[in-house]
Formats: sequence, structure tokens, C-alpha cells
Amino acid sequence: MRENLPTILGCTSDYEDAKICVFGAPFDSTTSFRPGTRFASQHIRSDSWGLETYSPYQDLDLQDAKICDCGDLELCFGHPQTALKQIETHTAQILGDGKIPCMLGGEHLVTLGSVRAAAEKYPNLCLLHFDAHTDLREDYLGERFSHATVIRRCHDLLGDGRIFQLGIRSGLREEFLWGAEHGFLHKFDLGGLTKAIERIGSRPVYFTIDLDVLDPSVFPGTGTPEPGGVQFMELLTAILHAAKLRIVGMDINELCPVYDPSGASTAVACKVLRELLLAVYFRKKEC
Amino acid sequence: MRENLPTILGCTSDYEDAKICVFGAPFDSTTSFRPGTRFASQHIRSDSWGLETYSPYQDLDLQDAKICDCGDLELCFGHPQTALKQIETHTAQILGDGKIPCMLGGEHLVTLGSVRAAAEKYPNLCLLHFDAHTDLREDYLGERFSHATVIRRCHDLLGDGRIFQLGIRSGLREEFLWGAEHGFLHKFDLGGLTKAIERIGSRPVYFTIDLDVLDPSVFPGTGTPEPGGVQFMELLTAILHAAKLRIVGMDINELCPVYDPSGASTAVACKVLRELLLAVYFRKKEC
Amino acid sequence: MRENLPTILGCTSDYEDAKICVFGAPFDSTTSFRPGTRFASQHIRSDSWGLETYSPYQDLDLQDAKICDCGDLELCFGHPQTALKQIETHTAQILGDGKIPCMLGGEHLVTLGSVRAAAEKYPNLCLLHFDAHTDLREDYLGERFSHATVIRRCHDLLGDGRIFQLGIRSGLREEFLWGAEHGFLHKFDLGGLTKAIERIGSRPVYFTIDLDVLDPSVFPGTGTPEPGGVQFMELLTAILHAAKLRIVGMDINELCPVYDPSGASTAVACKVLRELLLAVYFRKKEC
Amino acid sequence: MRENLPTILGCTSDYEDAKICVFGAPFDSTTSFRPGTRFASQHIRSDSWGLETYSPYQDLDLQDAKICDCGDLELCFGHPQTALKQIETHTAQILGDGKIPCMLGGEHLVTLGSVRAAAEKYPNLCLLHFDAHTDLREDYLGERFSHATVIRRCHDLLGDGRIFQLGIRSGLREEFLWGAEHGFLHKFDLGGLTKAIERIGSRPVYFTIDLDVLDPSVFPGTGTPEPGGVQFMELLTAILHAAKLRIVGMDINELCPVYDPSGASTAVACKVLRELLLAVYFRKKEC
Amino acid sequence: MRENLPTILGCTSDYEDAKICVFGAPFDSTTSFRPGTRFASQHIRSDSWGLETYSPYQDLDLQDAKICDCGDLELCFGHPQTALKQIETHTAQILGDGKIPCMLGGEHLVTLGSVRAAAEKYPNLCLLHFDAHTDLREDYLGERFSHATVIRRCHDLLGDGRIFQLGIRSGLREEFLWGAEHGFLHKFDLGGLTKAIERIGSRPVYFTIDLDVLDPSVFPGTGTPEPGGVQFMELLTAILHAAKLRIVGMDINELCPVYDPSGASTAVACKVLRELLLAVYFRKKEC
Amino acid sequence: MRENLPTILGCTSDYEDAKICVFGAPFDSTTSFRPGTRFASQHIRSDSWGLETYSPYQDLDLQDAKICDCGDLELCFGHPQTALKQIETHTAQILGDGKIPCMLGGEHLVTLGSVRAAAEKYPNLCLLHFDAHTDLREDYLGERFSHATVIRRCHDLLGDGRIFQLGIRSGLREEFLWGAEHGFLHKFDLGGLTKAIERIGSRPVYFTIDLDVLDPSVFPGTGTPEPGGVQFMELLTAILHAAKLRIVGMDINELCPVYDPSGASTAVACKVLRELLLAVYFRKKEC
Repeated sequence: MRENLPTILGCTSDYEDAKICVFGAPFDSTTSFRPGTRFASQHIRSDSWGLETYSPYQDLDLQDAKICDCGDLELCFGHPQTALKQIETHTAQILGDGKIPCMLGGEHLVTLGSVRAAAEKYPNLCLLHFDAHTDLREDYLGERFSHATVIRRCHDLLGDGRIFQLGIRSGLREEFLWGAEHGFLHKFDLGGLTKAIERIGSRPVYFTIDLDVLDPSVFPGTGTPEPGGVQFMELLTAILHAAKLRIVGMDINELCPVYDPSGASTAVACKVLRELLLAVYFRKKEC
Repeated sequence: MRENLPTILGCTSDYEDAKICVFGAPFDSTTSFRPGTRFASQHIRSDSWGLETYSPYQDLDLQDAKICDCGDLELCFGHPQTALKQIETHTAQILGDGKIPCMLGGEHLVTLGSVRAAAEKYPNLCLLHFDAHTDLREDYLGERFSHATVIRRCHDLLGDGRIFQLGIRSGLREEFLWGAEHGFLHKFDLGGLTKAIERIGSRPVYFTIDLDVLDPSVFPGTGTPEPGGVQFMELLTAILHAAKLRIVGMDINELCPVYDPSGASTAVACKVLRELLLAVYFRKKEC
Repeated sequence: MRENLPTILGCTSDYEDAKICVFGAPFDSTTSFRPGTRFASQHIRSDSWGLETYSPYQDLDLQDAKICDCGDLELCFGHPQTALKQIETHTAQILGDGKIPCMLGGEHLVTLGSVRAAAEKYPNLCLLHFDAHTDLREDYLGERFSHATVIRRCHDLLGDGRIFQLGIRSGLREEFLWGAEHGFLHKFDLGGLTKAIERIGSRPVYFTIDLDVLDPSVFPGTGTPEPGGVQFMELLTAILHAAKLRIVGMDINELCPVYDPSGASTAVACKVLRELLLAVYFRKKEC
Repeated sequence: MRENLPTILGCTSDYEDAKICVFGAPFDSTTSFRPGTRFASQHIRSDSWGLETYSPYQDLDLQDAKICDCGDLELCFGHPQTALKQIETHTAQILGDGKIPCMLGGEHLVTLGSVRAAAEKYPNLCLLHFDAHTDLREDYLGERFSHATVIRRCHDLLGDGRIFQLGIRSGLREEFLWGAEHGFLHKFDLGGLTKAIERIGSRPVYFTIDLDVLDPSVFPGTGTPEPGGVQFMELLTAILHAAKLRIVGMDINELCPVYDPSGASTAVACKVLRELLLAVYFRKKEC
Repeated sequence: MRENLPTILGCTSDYEDAKICVFGAPFDSTTSFRPGTRFASQHIRSDSWGLETYSPYQDLDLQDAKICDCGDLELCFGHPQTALKQIETHTAQILGDGKIPCMLGGEHLVTLGSVRAAAEKYPNLCLLHFDAHTDLREDYLGERFSHATVIRRCHDLLGDGRIFQLGIRSGLREEFLWGAEHGFLHKFDLGGLTKAIERIGSRPVYFTIDLDVLDPSVFPGTGTPEPGGVQFMELLTAILHAAKLRIVGMDINELCPVYDPSGASTAVACKVLRELLLAVYFRKKEC
Repeated sequence: MRENLPTILGCTSDYEDAKICVFGAPFDSTTSFRPGTRFASQHIRSDSWGLETYSPYQDLDLQDAKICDCGDLELCFGHPQTALKQIETHTAQILGDGKIPCMLGGEHLVTLGSVRAAAEKYPNLCLLHFDAHTDLREDYLGERFSHATVIRRCHDLLGDGRIFQLGIRSGLREEFLWGAEHGFLHKFDLGGLTKAIERIGSRPVYFTIDLDVLDPSVFPGTGTPEPGGVQFMELLTAILHAAKLRIVGMDINELCPVYDPSGASTAVACKVLRELLLAVYFRKKEC
């Protein structure tokens, strides 16, 4: 009778059969402004009921895809290094079993755990990053592990020319300069995506979406809403475009349900996830 | 002293004098995800205070129109057939008195009650339908009367070529196929309206607006928010365009105030209603 | 990896091993005022995280009990008879397997489904009923199946002298009179429990708790808050007292999470459930 | 068809027939902390649906009472003197027609308008005042008309020995001293009521209930919640007790629906109003 | 240790050094629909933490600007004339000290206080006004001082040809006519700004931004949401454009935090304020 | 002009003059269920406006007390050891200057920082602890620093017979046993206080109040609401009683404003703080 427990977007494949494995990473301890993203995966699971499995945009249906909901990791709040290690181990296992991990944050720091595992398996890994914020600080109040430094920590692993940031509209002046110098940083919208895809080419890609890349009118339910972002259809179009890349891992972050009283932000997260899963699962190889 | 009770958009005409009769149909028992639309008419009445009666878009004023607020029906929750019968009877009376009914849902199933009455009076009735969802299932969990089947039930009455759906972006694959085959189904936005108007011609029209056709950024306060919808001005323009048709009945549905903590969705519903009432009331016959 | 999905109060026994089976009955279509109890079991599952499994009141721990979370039934909204049949079938299976069902509503009408199954197995079944409302109407707006008529429908099955109502403080005058004449109706608080227990004796009991028996200060998150109810410790004491009875089935109803923004009502429901489960599971036979 | 508009507690008598006239006074411009009581009467009207007309406490039913809902006054925000004049005029008319006015604030300042009218008609009027706050300041930031000065302004009209305050637990030290010297001030709870009733004797009474006399656990939805207040049943008992007095006018104030997301405070206001109306309407003359 | 108290956007210059002085004017007593703007400056101060001081749009940083947070005025609720006088005095002092005042409302009436002081110092002052509403009534329910009359009152001081209104989409028909006749009124969007700037030329300007000029999807947290407004980037572009004018005083009004449960509206207010402050502070003289 | 910034309960003494120093410790990174206590001190500051400085319970006024609001510490989220060090340093300075620190958490872990400083100065320090939870785990998910282990960590410093816990109603069985063995643990209410005071005698006391010792009806706005707690007046009485002890440091923790939509919990925190400050400041030495 256990089968009646809700799963993410109704995905009920067993782990063994699955090509993509979705799991929650409920962690938000380094969030600098408003915490609460730890509840994101839980709300996505609950509100999956409100979304069809069929996408009229792609004419594809999740019911035709083998995707597993692995549930949520039990991460230790207040101890980022421990949590990152747990995430890395979990992602490494999924990658080791030849599957694609799809993590649901949590705050953006969780990405570092997964990128560590992916970079281990794919030495020439690139990082495609949609976000409002640079996340490129060297440290935050003296600490090097924070959702404000996560992409800089990824750069420690990946190095120059491997990180592609789009939609960025908030950060320190030096972060903007540093990002442009050491990687690819497209400000304000997703306009530079074609160029980024071209540069990435056939290299393996970890795709991380901080949902606050969306305008707060579309996605108010996040810890640090930053006005001036992209509309839903712009993000959807970009995701479908980006899905032509060779994506080996991915995550969706920064849904904060406590600031989503209408549930509209959770609905956005569900739909972004559905389209991303379908596009990656049924990807037509072009690169 | 009873005159101090609030009415919808300040409409205070008597029933006898009125050309349009607005009434609430507080029913939401078949709502599959998040109920609460039963409170819509009540909140529209309360928040009417925040909206002027004058429209700068049409240069028309509700104070110059004879419109009656008939209050809310008292419908029996949990018993859709009974409720539909009550709605049908009420609408039939208004139609029989030579007036135009304007129903405020409630969930979308209530439309069936009004369409029954309208189709009885106007055998060649067409249905103009703005919505995010197809609502074309043959049944939902085995039951044929649901807000997910309402347009299919209308088709049972009206038949092929009489239903015009726009803005649709959610449903089963088979619903999209069925809708295109048996009627007119324009996906994603309201772009096909000119063509729909052309095809409808001078036939009588029942106009049903499911407000979730709007993007959840504009209209989060609804049971099943579906990202990727139209903006407010697109809907407004389309309504003014559609109002050239020979509209004999209409409704506005799916405002769910419990998911509208800011009141912005209720403000949208009020303004859509104002513009619709003005456009239909002062319609210049063109068809 | 499916084991990471959240369960009610962390209960993870398999169905086969379990002595008590908890399941959700998400149905609220006949709710006359404010719907939303359909989300109760889901929220109890999510917020179980905030409650210890150990009870200092009883010095007992859920980790020592074999209890199964069977997930939620998928009930058809808007069609009470269909839903009641589904609940009856499910409960009958659990009872048939020699286990104790513990249902989480949903509105109070769901109790009728379970009572039907229990009365079938136990012909001399008594009903112990904690509630603010009589629920004794013969019909509500002409319909006989409603959360306002559920105990009257139970009486149709059980007859006089078998229904014991406590905490009642709302209803029609005739309901109060009818309840006193045909059963046992204690007004305002749980003071008459000792007498009720005495009268019930060793007969099998179905125990239904409408959580609105609590004062709205303790339990605001319900569809129809009724001021003047009992405090939390009064309810807890009464439950521990009542658990000496031979309870063969039970339910907890009317948590409505949309009206519980602080989560305090969900915490109350979780704790009431924990204490009830422990008391029934480890019951010392006294009757 | 106008009869379907909601009224307070379902009271539908005509003005002519009514013995008690309820009306809303939506004004909150001098509220010093959190405004919003202007919406109180509207919410009481809407949520009346959730409360029975029958009181098991008094075994009386509102359906047997002739009470009129006069709707809401349209008061000019930001201009207390104008608003007070409007309230005074309206109350004077009701009193002049031999009926009992029952005003629903609004902030507490509205009481002054009604007391002016009542004191005009009844020169030996007493004021019975339940509240958490003294409201006895001579001025507030230099202005003499404020919800923090209202009882002092009533004293300007009535003089020493005519004002009876109970439940008071907040104010300046000098207000407490002044209140004890010039009237009757019982701190913290309603314990001094018997003594107050004795002193009032058969004199005519205006009864003003600031609902924040209740503990914020019972009544959080108010502008200035003051912990340490009375429980619901204590207030109810006191009201039934006080209703033996010769009450010629009354009001209930300071429900602030924007701070009542669960609706429990509105339910409390509705039930207090029901019991007050029944007790005053069916008063057995004892004084 | 007092330096740890939060300030607006982290501005910590002393008054003496500052070129721009920000202060709160918490007043909302004449608000006709939903009050609560009194809490705006407080929330802007609290949520400043979520916004960087650096603007990638202008490549400028608030840390390089000498701006003082003067805290909030203590205004007397319910007494508009008194409050306006306090605001006028405060603004006059700042202007007298050769600084630029930047007031955070509060409702829009507060603008009148500042405009009085500015018009006193700059006899040829122009008023640039972004808003959804005309605010041009001669009176509101008989009173001349209201947030619905504030621009008309400014016209009393400034006269014809000095007031430039943009974004207007709500008002009485006569207000639209009056505005076009006596000043410059651009409907619906900010399209007429270039023309307005041209006409204003080098005259001193008071710039007042009613944030409800934005669409409620972007800015739901306001007393009177009016659908059909401008997007965030349109407003930002217009502000940067307008900042070329000789701005001698400014304000931002009508954020109502109680209707902003997600905090997105407060984030918008913070960002609009940051961009406005930077643009005015570092203004390149072009006029 | 900086003096207009809001301070806690209107306390405006300079640090030099103050006898008690209040400061915020906004940290919640180890919170295991629902984070957000970081915003507590900010909300206490904002809502201080709603509370008088005079206490009718003690007949004392904060305006007669020299108390300083030191603002909030800027603590590094996600790094408990760093944050604890900052708190310890800050508290040590206040203690070193001969003043009494009063910290406003934040989660309960912050207490450890202050207790470290206090235990350094007062080697025979006792800890008086009001709480719903034991907080006595040796570790939580393997980590030793957590709000679930804080009192155990204090025991590491203080040893047996120095910790006095009251109101405890949640924890593991072994925590209850451990607490009773190594200290003083009174379950469920504050009844054992007289005995605890007796045992403490004249030793210096650090007094830590976890506000969730209150029943969630009184104090819903906390991370882990635990039904069955004490009423407001019970806590107030106990505080006044405990204040006879020689209190050398104190804190109030676990207000979580995001779960306090009515503001009633913040009002409770403000009032508890006022009474505690007055009682400690004006303490009559009895021990």
C-alpha cells in the first residue's frame, strides 16, 4: 500500500530502471537573507498534483519516461561541509550507475556537492548557470562556503573558460569583472545562450538553474527576490534550447515555499522541472 | 437602510430595469486540486470599492449602465447535478426576461448550468472559451461532471464546430487532439481570436472566461496556476475585441481568494468584469 | 531509494506487519463553509518532522510500535457516494486483515465510509464522537450526505443508544434535542466521558475526533472554527481515558491547513495522532 | 433578487420592524499601531455563514428576533470629526425611532459618536467598557480625538462615576490612576463585574466591547494585541451577566481582519455578537 | 554600539556630510481602500539586507555616495493637516541645508507636505508624477485633503503647466479631462516621458513616484492594485531617463507591506530607491 | 537625526550609562525544522511601537530604567562555531563592563555563546532554562553543535547540579532520563520553580527562556510548536518569581516571525521582554 505516497511529478520508476534520478537536497543553512528553501522538494512533490504530465510545448509525456523519485537526503543543518559531502556521495552513486542526477535544492550551495561528483567523472565538465546573482564571492563574512560563493568554489574545481553564467543582475562590481574575465557572464537576460552553447560544444555539461533568474512577478517565492528578471516563456525557451547540450547532471534551486503563499512559484518550479526532465530525457543529440 | 450593503462594482439597478444581471455561483466541489472559488463573488463584491466605475480604455462608465447585482445562489456543496440544475433555472429566468446573464464562478463546472439554459433559448449557440486548460476529458476518475470535463459536456449539447477555445496550455495529449478535431483550439495565447470571431459570425455566443488563462504572475489567486499565460493587457484587448460578437450570456470563473493574499488577483477579476460588462452593455453591433 | 519519502509520524512498518494502519482520506466536497481539509494528511506527513516519536505523557515511543502509513486514497471530488464507497472498501480490507484502521480526513463525512465497514464487522459497534458540532441534521439543503449530517447517517446504521457525543456546542435546537433523545450528547466540554465509557462497557468502539472540538485558540486551522472549545490538555487527557475502551477503528478529521499559516494546528493534529496511536496500540485491557 | 446579498448573522428584518439595528462603522484613521479595522463589519457579514443562529448557551435563536442589518456607513477616512458626526447622526436616528443601536467598529474612537447620541437621549447614561487598554489619555501626540483617548472624551460628556472599565491591562501609569479616581477601573480580568452592575443599578447603559480584552490566543486579529487577557468563556459569561442591565446602545470594536488569516478572530467576533444580540433582545428585566 | 541598527539600503552617512537625506513618512490615514503604507519605510529598512549596494545597470555603488537615513517622522494618525505641517517643516530644513530630500511614504498625500516646502524654495518648481491614479479630485467625500486629491492640491500651489503625469490608468472621467487641460497627462504607460522632459527643461523638479504605476504582477503590495501597469524594466528605464532633470526633491510612495507576503514588492521598492538615489546623486548635468 | 531609528521597547540609553544591554543574535542555521528566528530581534524592534513602556503588573516603567539597545550582531550563517565565538566575545565585553547582557535569539544554540562568557566570569554559574524541549542530545545527526544539543553543551561547561530545566514536554526518552540524573528537570509546566529557586540560592544565574515553553495557542510563531505548554500569565508569574534570583545574564529565544502572521507572538515576546527587563533591573535583592 506504500505506493500511495506522493512522488515528484508522479514519477514512479524504480531506481534500477530509471535514466534520470530526481532527489531533494533540503539544505539552506548558509542562506544570507531569508531561509526556507529546505522545504522546496517537499512542496514540489505535494503540488505535482496540479500539473499534467504531458507537455504541449514539446508534445512529450512524463508517463513515457523512466524517471525515479529518490526522496530527500537527510542533511545536517548548520554544517555545510558535512552536507556537501553527503550530496557528493549520493550524486556520485547515481552517476556511477550510469544515470543522470537531477537535484532539487535547497539553497544554491548544494550545487557544489553535485558538481564535485560530476567533475570527478567528467574531467572536462562545463557549468551552465542561470541565475540573478553572480555567486562569485571569494568568501562571505570570512567563510568560503556559502550560497554567495558557490560558483567561485565551482571555479576552483573547473578553472577558467568552463563556467557560463546568464541572466545575472546582482553582485559586487568585482564579481561582475571577475566573472567576465574568468568565464562567460551574460548580464540581465538569457540572450547570450546561443553563443554559450556554441562555445561549450560537445563537452559534458552540468546545468544549474537558480529560479531567481526569473522576475519576482513570476517567481516571488524565493529567498532573495531580485526585480528585473526574465519571464517564464523566456526561461522555458532557453531551457529547451540548452537541452541540446550533453547534460550529465542538473539541478533546480532556491524555491522558498514560505514566501509563496499563492503557490504560483511552486507551480513554476514544477513546470520548469517537467520541461527540463522531458527535454533532457528525450534529447535529440545535436552536438 | 438596506441600501448600504455592498454590491458588485457598485451596480445597483433593480432587476426589472437591468439589461445585464450579475450573480454569484459559489460552487467548487469538483475542483481537483485546490478548492475555494466559492468565495470569489463575495470578494469581488468587497473589493469593488478599490476600483473606479469609469474605464479610460473604453471611455465608458458603469454608472451609465443598468446592471443588477442579483446576489449569490445558495448551491448545495458536494452535489453537482443539483447545483447545475439551480444554475440552469436561474439563468433561464434571466434569459427569459430578455436580459443577459453574467455569472461569477465558482469553479468552471458552473458554466454547464448556464450553457444549458442558453442553448435551450439559442439553438445555434456558440461557446467562446478562454482558459489555460482544455477541460475536455470524457470523465475524471470515472465521473462525468467535473471542472475538468465541463467543455466536453458543453460539446455534448452543442456539437462540433461550435466551441472556440483559446489560450490553452494544459491538458492530456488526447484532449488537445480531440479539441482540434471537434472544435477550434488555439494553443498558448489569444492569437487566433480574429479567426474565431470570423467563424462565429453573427451566431449567438456564450462567452466563458477562466481567469487562469492569465499568467500566474498576473493572476496567482486560482486553484490550478499554470505558468506561461497571457498578460493582463492581452486579455483586455481580446475581451474588447470579442465583445463585438453577439454575446447572450457570459461568465468569469476560477478566482480563488484564499490564494490571493495580496488581493491583486481579485483586483484583476474586478477589472476584467468591469471591462466585459461595459463592452457588452454598450456593444456596437458589427456582426 | 524510495525509503526517503516522508511518512506519517515516521511510521514505516509494512502493511503485513502492522497492527494499526493509518491512511489519508482527502475529501472535502460537502464542506459547507471553508473547504481545504483534503490537504490534512499531506501536511501531517510533512510536519511529522517537527515532532518526536517519544511521548513523555505515556512514556511510550512510536518506534516501538508496528504502524503502517498506507498513503492517501485517491477520492473523486464532488461525488460523495463514490468516495464513501472507496473508503468503506479500504477500511473493510484493513479490518478484514485483523488490523485497526486510523483514517485522517478530510471533512467529517468520510467517517461514514469507515463506520459502514466497522459496523459490518462489529454489529454492536458504538460510536464515540468528539466534536464542536452536532452533525445530526437529517439533510442539508435537501441532500442527505454532508459533513453536517454524518452522525445522523451513522445513526441510521447503528440506532439508538450507540452514539456518544461530547464537546458539542453548535447546532440547531432540534439537533440538540434529537441527540439527547436518541443517544448521549454532552454539551460544551468532555466532562461526561466517564459516564459514556461506563455505558459503552466492553462493546467495540469506533472513535471519531473532529479536531474542532478544541478551542480555535488551540486549533484555528479548521473549516468552521467554533469558539468556546476545550484546551489541548483536556483533549489529551480524554483521549488517554477513552483509549481504555475496545477501539476497533478511529479517525481524526477537519484539519484545514490553508487556515493554519503558523502550522500550530498541524502540530496539534500530529500530537493528538501520536498520543492516540500510542494509547490504542499499547492499550491495557481494562474493559 | 437583492435578497441574496449577505447580511450580518443572517439578520433580515426590515428597519421598521426591528428592535435592534446593527450597522458597520468602518473607520480606523486614528489607529496608532496597525490599521485595518475598517474591514471588520464586512468580514463579520461574510463569515456569518459559518455560525448557527441558535445559541445552546442561552437556548435562544436569532431567527426568533427582529434585528436589522443596516449595512455600513460611508465614513470619510482621515477626518475623525466628520466621521464622528456621521455616526452620531445615524445612532440618534435609530435611538429616536425607539430601537437599540449595535455598532460594529472600526477602531474604538467610533464609540464616541454613538455615546454622544445616547447621552443626548439618556442624560444619566453609564458606560460599561470591556478593554485591554485604558483609552484615557487626554491627548495623543497633541490631538484629542484618537482611539487612545476615546474613553476620556466620553468622560468629558458623562463625568465622574459613570464609566465602568474592566479587563484593563495596558496604559500609562497616570491613566490607571486617573481611571480609578474618576470612575471604576478593574485591572486584568472581568472579576469586578458584579460590583459594577450593582453600582450601575437601573441607569441606562451603553455597553462597549473592545475585543482585545480577550487574550491574543483567542483573538489575535486586532490592531494592538495585548497578551494576558481573558478567555472566550469568561467574556461570554460576563456578557450574559451584563445583559441584565438596561442596555440602550452597544458596540463591538477592534476586529482587524488583515491580522486574522485563520478567520478564528472573526468567528469569535461573530459569536460574541450573536450572544450579545440574543441576550439584549430577550433580556429579562431584573434591574 | 548603536551603529548596528539597520538603515535604509545601508546608508550610514551623517546628516552633515550627506547630499541626499532619506526619511520615512509613515502616514496613511486618508487611504480610501486598504491602509498600511505606514509600515513601508520600516520594511524597506529591514529588507535592505537582501539587496546589493552596487547597480550593474548604472555601474555605480551606494557605498560611494554620501546619503543619510534620517529615520522616520512621528506623525499623528487621523490628523492630515498636522502631519502635512510636520513633513513640510522637516523637508524645508533639509532643503534649507542645501540637501536633497527623499521621502518614503506612506500614502500619496504626504507628497503635499514636501511639495509645499520645495515650492517655497523653488518658485518655478515642476512636478513629475508617475502613478496609476489621477489623484486630481477636488475633494473626496467632501474633504479636500486625501490621497485621492493630492495632485490637485499640488496644482493649487503650482498652477497650470507645471504638473507632468505619466502611467495614469484610473480616475473619474472629469479627472482625466481636467488633467489634460491643466497639465500634462499621459495615459497607461510612461511613453510620453521624452516630451515631458523636453517641456520641463532646466526648471527644478520634484519627482514623485507612486509605485502602483507598476503592474500588480510586479508590485502587488499596495493599497489599491490597478492591473494594466508598467513592467519593472520600463520603470527603471524611465527613472534613469528622468534623472537627467534637475531634481531637487523626490519621494516613493504607496508600498503597503501587509499585502506583500512574499516580500517581492518591498524588494521592488528597495531597488527602485537604489537606482533613483544613484541616478540623482551621480547625475550628469544635461539640462 | 539618527535618533528616529526604532529601538527595542523604546530603550535609548547610551551603552555607557546602561545597566542592561539588549542585543540581537540573528542566527538559525542549525534549526532542524523551520528556520527564521534570525528575524526575531528586528520584529521585536518594529512592534515595540504597539506596547506601553509601563507595566501595571509591576507598577514599573521602562522609561525609568537605563537600558541600551546595542542593535544586532552580524553573524555568519552556516558556521555555528564562528557565530558562537562572536556572541561570546560580545557578551564578554558587556559583562566585563559590569553590565547585564540580554540577548534576543535566534535559535537556542546562541545561548551557548553567552553562557561561555558568563561561566568564564562566574565560575559557579547556574543555568535556569524554560523550554518545551530538553535540548540535551549529545549530538544531532552526528554534529555536536545544534539547537537540539545546546543545553548538553552548557552542561559540558557547568557540570552536574547546575542546570534547572522547567516546562519540558518534548525529547527522547534518554534525554528525559539524562536531564533528571544530571540536573533538575521539571516536566510539562513551571510548577517546580520554587524548588529550583531554593536550590540555586544566591549563586549567579544565567536565565534562558525558549518561548516555545508557551502553548502554541499563545505563541504559535516559533520553529517547532509543541502543544500542551503554559499560558501567558503562568510564564509571567514565573518570570517575576525567578527575577528574585541573582541574574547575571539572560536571553529570549525562538520567536520565528514568518510563522506569526497575526503578530500576536511578537507581541508576546515584547511583553515577556518588558517584564523580564523591569524585574531584573529593579530587582529587590532577596537571596
